[in-house]
Amino acid sequence: MKNILLKIQYDGSKYSGWQRQTNAVTIQGTIEEAIEKLCGKYIETIGCSRTDSGVHAREYILNFHIESKMPPDKYQPALNGILPEDIVVLNSKEVNEDFHARYSSKGKKYSYYILNRNYPCAINRKYVYHYKNPLSIDLMKECSEYLIGTHDFSAFKNSGSSIINNIRTINSIDITKKEDLLEISIEGNGFLYNMVRIIVGTFIEVGIGKMKPNYINTILESKDRNLAGITIPAKGLFLEKVFY
Amino acid sequence: MKNILLKIQYDGSKYSGWQRQTNAVTIQGTIEEAIEKLCGKYIETIGCSRTDSGVHAREYILNFHIESKMPPDKYQPALNGILPEDIVVLNSKEVNEDFHARYSSKGKKYSYYILNRNYPCAINRKYVYHYKNPLSIDLMKECSEYLIGTHDFSAFKNSGSSIINNIRTINSIDITKKEDLLEISIEGNGFLYNMVRIIVGTFIEVGIGKMKPNYINTILESKDRNLAGITIPAKGLFLEKVFY
Repeated sequence: MKNILLKIQYDGSKYSGWQRQTNAVTIQGTIEEAIEKLCGKYIETIGCSRTDSGVHAREYILNFHIESKMPPDKYQPALNGILPEDIVVLNSKEVNEDFHARYSSKGKKYSYYILNRNYPCAINRKYVYHYKNPLSIDLMKECSEYLIGTHDFSAFKNSGSSIINNIRTINSIDITKKEDLLEISIEGNGFLYNMVRIIVGTFIEVGIGKMKPNYINTILESKDRNLAGITIPAKGLFLEKVFY
Repeated sequence: MKNILLKIQYDGSKYSGWQRQTNAVTIQGTIEEAIEKLCGKYIETIGCSRTDSGVHAREYILNFHIESKMPPDKYQPALNGILPEDIVVLNSKEVNEDFHARYSSKGKKYSYYILNRNYPCAINRKYVYHYKNPLSIDLMKECSEYLIGTHDFSAFKNSGSSIINNIRTINSIDITKKEDLLEISIEGNGFLYNMVRIIVGTFIEVGIGKMKPNYINTILESKDRNLAGITIPAKGLFLEKVFY
């Protein structure tokens, strides 16, 4: 029995997220179908994260256990020959028997892209969220500093997850602007359901001056989801990297 | 009568090029329909270039003459409210009566993107051409230098155009590489039918070592289309800028 790791990239635009579902097309379902076509039997995969519908991944890690003589590095070209063009296997290799894409993960990095100008873009429109009102990067940066460290992020979690422990550590938040494009990168040891999207939604309220940067402390302490900003649309969100 | 200039951006993936056709969806046809919806009558537009099916434009210029009291800068938001999301008006303004998007143009800049690695990409896949064999940037750069200047580019033109004068001037060719992504930018006073795509197709033969860099002189002198490389696919090509 081999434990095979796949590093994949996907454009999530057309998928109902990672997790296999009966009545919807998902990344996991599509990958498992491709593996079944290749190996002739159903193999369950373990994903590093349950990304939401519409979220993209620059690098997503999954693994599966298989009884096969196929050289581990051959899964990459073989699966790329079967998968649709919006899912690509970047790398395949054998890992230790106890490697688990989700439980072995030490952290993740997400990026969110906001096109901040009056009119939208045609090129790359599926990878950015268009927001018209001018955003102050300085205010957003000031606000982001309060989130660094270990906190109870209950106020930044939507219902729909069975996780009880809401304490997470954010190691860094970088906010940069290149012409009209804002990139917000967040690195942490783990993220609650919709946490990145709610953080960015809150940054937007700060960026337009509606919320004071240090109000984020009140939100954290309250543990009240209603105090934080909206859940910003999925299309601007990328899982950039998973750390092990 | 006002002469209105529109600067637009488009993702050409789903369009049969710029020029209006009876049985195909084109950029010009879509723009003219939007103007008709806005103004209540058909107005003919003049485009800066007949881009091919599948080619993208970061900045494309067109103009049209119209009898209307609408402030020129209002065409931008109004048309963006009507156009599909893969065509965006970046700017609208009034220009001199004799401005002509095509004849007034002094030059254009095109870029071609090649993903040069063993496996494709999922993100941005509609904006790059995937080529597996390793390409030598140095050989391609050496080759590109022979094209700078004024030449008869007959060998770099496909049939299907009524243009007789095949003499054009290329001002600069920049070839850069960032990770696995090659960008080839070509600036010149004008381009023949498929000229950029044939030049890049020829660079590929040079880049893999099949053709010597200085063979491009023989091709130019021959005026024989058969000696140059293939017409590389449209999806990696962007009209970047038009000069007036």
